[in-house]
Amino acid sequence: MKTTVSIALDERSYPIDIGTGLLAQLAGGEGLPPGTAALIVTNDTVAPLYGAQLQAALAAHYPAVHQVVLPDGEAHKEWQTLNLIFDALLTHGCDRKVVLYALGGGVVGDMTGFAAACYMRGVPFVQLPTTLLAQVDSSVGGKTAINHPLGKNMIGAFYQPRRVVCDLATLDTLPARELSAGLAEVIKYGPIADMAFFDWLEAHIDALLARERTALAHAVRRSCEIKAQVVAADEREGGLRAILNFGHTFGHAIEAGMGYGVWLHGEGVAAGMVMAAELSLRLGLVDAAFVQRLRALLVRAGLPVWGPVIDAQDNAGRYLALMRVDKKAEAGEIRFVLIDAPGRAVVRAAPDALVREVIDACCAVA
Amino acid sequence: MKTTVSIALDERSYPIDIGTGLLAQLAGGEGLPPGTAALIVTNDTVAPLYGAQLQAALAAHYPAVHQVVLPDGEAHKEWQTLNLIFDALLTHGCDRKVVLYALGGGVVGDMTGFAAACYMRGVPFVQLPTTLLAQVDSSVGGKTAINHPLGKNMIGAFYQPRRVVCDLATLDTLPARELSAGLAEVIKYGPIADMAFFDWLEAHIDALLARERTALAHAVRRSCEIKAQVVAADEREGGLRAILNFGHTFGHAIEAGMGYGVWLHGEGVAAGMVMAAELSLRLGLVDAAFVQRLRALLVRAGLPVWGPVIDAQDNAGRYLALMRVDKKAEAGEIRFVLIDAPGRAVVRAAPDALVREVIDACCAVA
Repeated sequence: MKTTVSIALDERSYPIDIGTGLLAQLAGGEGLPPGTAALIVTNDTVAPLYGAQLQAALAAHYPAVHQVVLPDGEAHKEWQTLNLIFDALLTHGCDRKVVLYALGGGVVGDMTGFAAACYMRGVPFVQLPTTLLAQVDSSVGGKTAINHPLGKNMIGAFYQPRRVVCDLATLDTLPARELSAGLAEVIKYGPIADMAFFDWLEAHIDALLARERTALAHAVRRSCEIKAQVVAADEREGGLRAILNFGHTFGHAIEAGMGYGVWLHGEGVAAGMVMAAELSLRLGLVDAAFVQRLRALLVRAGLPVWGPVIDAQDNAGRYLALMRVDKKAEAGEIRFVLIDAPGRAVVRAAPDALVREVIDACCAVA
Repeated sequence: MKTTVSIALDERSYPIDIGTGLLAQLAGGEGLPPGTAALIVTNDTVAPLYGAQLQAALAAHYPAVHQVVLPDGEAHKEWQTLNLIFDALLTHGCDRKVVLYALGGGVVGDMTGFAAACYMRGVPFVQLPTTLLAQVDSSVGGKTAINHPLGKNMIGAFYQPRRVVCDLATLDTLPARELSAGLAEVIKYGPIADMAFFDWLEAHIDALLARERTALAHAVRRSCEIKAQVVAADEREGGLRAILNFGHTFGHAIEAGMGYGVWLHGEGVAAGMVMAAELSLRLGLVDAAFVQRLRALLVRAGLPVWGPVIDAQDNAGRYLALMRVDKKAEAGEIRFVLIDAPGRAVVRAAPDALVREVIDACCAVA
């Protein structure tokens, strides 16, 4: 059982395969980029689970297969850890014909993609996402990056993988907290693009939490389809693509403010979506019932709907300061992804006073 | 007096302006990318000479102009120094509409370009090369990178500037050693592409060393024209572009082997071109008279024509080991840029034994 979604980007087009048992099937070599060697980049959580299996599969296809194991977690998405990939590539004498394989979640994918973009000014890479979040969002679309202490994903590149292979079987080993975090990005696609999908999610959220394969397959497929459409229309985030960041402006502030890795990315996005929806409500774009529906589905998915207090003195001020370095900001003006009407997003500014109101209303007092 | 050479790369096309007093003329703002702020990236040698002048010129065109001063020298072309640029950008709250200005030589240009490629996944930048080497080579063509302890320019991106402005007046303050190093890249264009230009260089080398403006203008212009042609045909070094690396395979080994900054890049290229020419001779491609002509011109330009001993035990072995991580290498086989006939280059492998012979013959015994 395998379905394929295509990302149409001219000579940078690539397929996303979705199915069960796909990692083992890589041994066939079908659709893998040719190369003089493969380097598997993974982390110390995923390596013991799927590292050996992947190494065996790739050995059938490349003269040499190397592996580098990074420490797990968002806190390690920075230069020192990235450099472990370059060290491995150079120590093994890998040339421009090496192919990088990202085996893991969003952090592994973002770092492997950025390393592939930079090593010898660009080598091919393949995404093998093992978390729901990576399968429905971060492994698709070519955004790669590392964090800077002053802002998330500040240093990176637009660099497309040659192929994305989502093996749903790998979700069996995903901790419940991370499954929920992935669902935040799945739920996101409803308000910004497809309320029929949101309806479906309300009907199937329990099946998804129970990891029923057919439900997961549909959720991953539909998420990838929507993302593929948006990315094909706007690869380098000139405009439309920004809507994929619904909840992320507030969410990134939460992640940076709490310290990377304290809140999972999807958790920040969940609380951030509630804030963005509240802001849309106060701007008269949506009604209270819509915000409540979103909040209810997030709660059922096991996600936080209240933001953390990240500064005891001036919480809203700290959120605003962190959001001003968001990549969508222009001349110090924060550009929010808001819901214009359920199923349609818009990017616009909002008065500081109103944003402060929203933050005050949406943050849990410790 | 200003001439312009164009780099034709579709929507990434840009002009190279060559003339005297061009830095001051930037105040007019003609052809500069619009932006919310400008960040001048320069080094502690160049900043006192031209920093204030450039800041004043750009202030007429941008709401804010910031400056970051890096330590001078190839030894600093690494991540820690690159991060100073990111720190400055984030500390000043620069958004995606910031424009970076590289004011300095090849190291400043390579690092600024790479920072521009990565900051928020890409912001515009302008090259203002103040060394001959940067004016005729490194600022043109979009190769950006930093070094890794195991290899030169290993981490980088193909990323084109929006404009290159070569102010010949800045060459007045260039140390003689660096002027000579720049001439190595100028001389390079003869053997690989244009022996009539080589004839002209033989006739005008003294005028160039005396920094006569009309001679410099012609040398910079012709060098940029040849580079523009090659880059337009092969932006990402799929094939033809590699010929621009004549002398660089040996040269990079010299730079890395001696420690970055001990030999100037142009000095490594000079000795490297002699080695590559000697290899071409031993492969029966050119005659001894050609090699002697090249050697003689390099000597007149004040450049080394003997390589250094970088390993007292096994000098040739160390050269070979360093060259195997060259970006042109494939599956451990070094690809040399050789002279097929004077004025025409070819990229090919050569037997290790022959390469050892050349290294032994071309390295000065201390």
